[in-house]
Amino acid sequence: MTSTFPSPIADKSKNEEGAVFAPRFDASGLITAVVTDAGDGTLLMVAHMNEEALRLTLDTGIAHYWSRSRKALWKKGETSGNLQTITEIRTDCDQDAIWLKVKVAGDGPTCHTGRRSCFYRTISLGDGKAVLIKE
Amino acid sequence: MTSTFPSPIADKSKNEEGAVFAPRFDASGLITAVVTDAGDGTLLMVAHMNEEALRLTLDTGIAHYWSRSRKALWKKGETSGNLQTITEIRTDCDQDAIWLKVKVAGDGPTCHTGRRSCFYRTISLGDGKAVLIKE
Repeated sequence: MTSTFPSPIADKSKNEEGAVFAPRFDASGLITAVVTDAGDGTLLMVAHMNEEALRLTLDTGIAHYWSRSRKALWKKGETSGNLQTITEIRTDCDQDAIWLKVKVAGDGPTCHTGRRSCFYRTISLGDGKAVLIKE
Repeated sequence: MTSTFPSPIADKSKNEEGAVFAPRFDASGLITAVVTDAGDGTLLMVAHMNEEALRLTLDTGIAHYWSRSRKALWKKGETSGNLQTITEIRTDCDQDAIWLKVKVAGDGPTCHTGRRSCFYRTISLGDGKAVLIKE
């Protein structure tokens, strides 16, 4: 692995307009990663990365995350074969989120339930009570 | 406001396949919200909601967030006029993230820097060093 990332940039303008990638990990050492399909833009999943996962993602071009439930580094698709190859990575204005555009290998599902996307339920409001409706 | 949300569902299958919306807020009481344009699907921003913000979003159809930097409820666009009207809300398999599809009012920018999206910089790798490139 190459060296770690620079510390978050305190100067707001430099952080927002500069060329230095200095990701801002939260109090738990994590940064949010939004993952969309490089082909049609579908939102596939939201996950988290610690510094090692982000470093590995940048170094290998394959998405790595930090599993909060398993408390372990997580090379997405290592077991299922549905690895995510990065086509583009972006960060946002305050550098506390990452957007990955990916191509999913294998038979395609990203969600562990077997679905293509983890976002397979809409929230519907009726009588002030939110109900989930599957696609 | 209507009542609060049910507690997170411990049973994995019920949580993933059921119709009860029981959002899983993190240790800070927040849930991640991914915000895309209802028209062309562009990722506009990533933000966070506390229970009140999520409740207000569902009740009014206008996106509300929790500003981590200001530690305050944040009705997005209240000052700028660029309010976000929800066309669809989804949650993910484990109910710890929200996806909002929104129509942005006014002159359109979502990012406080004046850009349409907060994700205006790609991360480019050169000699193992990540560099940000503006659109």
